[in-house]
Amino acid sequence: MIDKTRILITNDDGYHSEGIIALEEALSDLGEIYVVSPASEQSGAAHSLTLARPLRIRQIDGRHWTVDGTPTDCVTLALNQILTADERPHICVSGINHGPNLGDDATYSGTVAGAMEAAILGIPGIAFSLSSTRSLDFSESMKYARQIAERAIADGLPESTLLNVNIPQGEPKGIRITKQGIKEARPVISELIDPRGKPYYWIGEVRNGFRAEGGTDFEAIDEGYVSVTPMRADLTNYPAIQILETWNSL
Amino acid sequence: MIDKTRILITNDDGYHSEGIIALEEALSDLGEIYVVSPASEQSGAAHSLTLARPLRIRQIDGRHWTVDGTPTDCVTLALNQILTADERPHICVSGINHGPNLGDDATYSGTVAGAMEAAILGIPGIAFSLSSTRSLDFSESMKYARQIAERAIADGLPESTLLNVNIPQGEPKGIRITKQGIKEARPVISELIDPRGKPYYWIGEVRNGFRAEGGTDFEAIDEGYVSVTPMRADLTNYPAIQILETWNSL
Repeated sequence: MIDKTRILITNDDGYHSEGIIALEEALSDLGEIYVVSPASEQSGAAHSLTLARPLRIRQIDGRHWTVDGTPTDCVTLALNQILTADERPHICVSGINHGPNLGDDATYSGTVAGAMEAAILGIPGIAFSLSSTRSLDFSESMKYARQIAERAIADGLPESTLLNVNIPQGEPKGIRITKQGIKEARPVISELIDPRGKPYYWIGEVRNGFRAEGGTDFEAIDEGYVSVTPMRADLTNYPAIQILETWNSL
Repeated sequence: MIDKTRILITNDDGYHSEGIIALEEALSDLGEIYVVSPASEQSGAAHSLTLARPLRIRQIDGRHWTVDGTPTDCVTLALNQILTADERPHICVSGINHGPNLGDDATYSGTVAGAMEAAILGIPGIAFSLSSTRSLDFSESMKYARQIAERAIADGLPESTLLNVNIPQGEPKGIRITKQGIKEARPVISELIDPRGKPYYWIGEVRNGFRAEGGTDFEAIDEGYVSVTPMRADLTNYPAIQILETWNSL
């Protein structure tokens, strides 16, 4: 590659988070780094795009900006407003998220959405998450983020593809290419009472593990491996198309 | 069915919108209707879930509530807080959205996300969108929404499946079961100047049609058919798993 590799970094925990600082450090010798990240935490933002209000861009220094929006806003503004055509990145990485993005939870994740937006806009995307809610030791995550990003830069990714990478706690045994699993969780809503005696509600959940199924992201993490799930912005349930074909005669 | 059919309705345009009123009217004789919808417009909300702040529930009357959150918040609160176990719905419908949700845009859609959340929580979900940005004539949409909901109630849907239904402008020629297509669009960011001379940015786009490919939602709408795309909350790019298998040795 004659051109110097350019890497766009975003996340959903906001630009002050330890995870994005770790990611920038991990990739610093792979090329020129541009960071465009949310000004505040955006966990659970999913692939939401801010359409009903304008956005502010704040330049922190030469190659760091914040946007008062979602990870998807950050990526579309980075690629269509902030960076010049000469600065168009070769890859976009998102994270390192504080906590896992496994199974169905990928569909709620702002971290995954940042990488998805890049894939939609024609740039390979990778989302990185540390699959632990207790530890914030990013050392192994940094090592694998560097290896996986380097491989993706060298080999490219299949068209319109992003990778959802989860790194287990401790020292990983290796890498597994996986599919998205299905979590077994029960939403639990807390009802609380405000100082004026009125109820308000907070969404939580109780996790009961995951559906036992070979080859999933959950299984890989459970067995101590880094999980790499290739994804794309396509929600089609292909096997169901044939089942529903008789509806054409409705 | 001995039990009376119960139908949960949500949307992303908010509880005052014409589309949700049309949907409730269209389904009113199919069973008992419960409406839990966002207090304000949530277009572009995607599958976002409000985790960083509490939510308020407002009961408008016996079977109508608003939530100051996203469509996903509405569905999880409806199923886990607002409705009793005896009121658990047999189906959840979302819409009728003012405008199309075709191709990749499904991943940004709050309308689709409401139906997806139902599917994750074990209830068949259907998202309805009127594929026109000009007309708000919901008469044909109401007719098809009723037919498709009735069929889904009678036959059920494949496991974990939601339907993304788009209805064309005018009188549809019939129904087609489709896959999610790929839009050809260019994001366009408008730079504007506030009264204090500072720039702000608004996300827009220029549409150039869609990628020509048989069997897509775009093609069905373009040819005057109702598009029914079976979807699920699974982002895995299955064909890419094999391509990436060599990465296991990374």
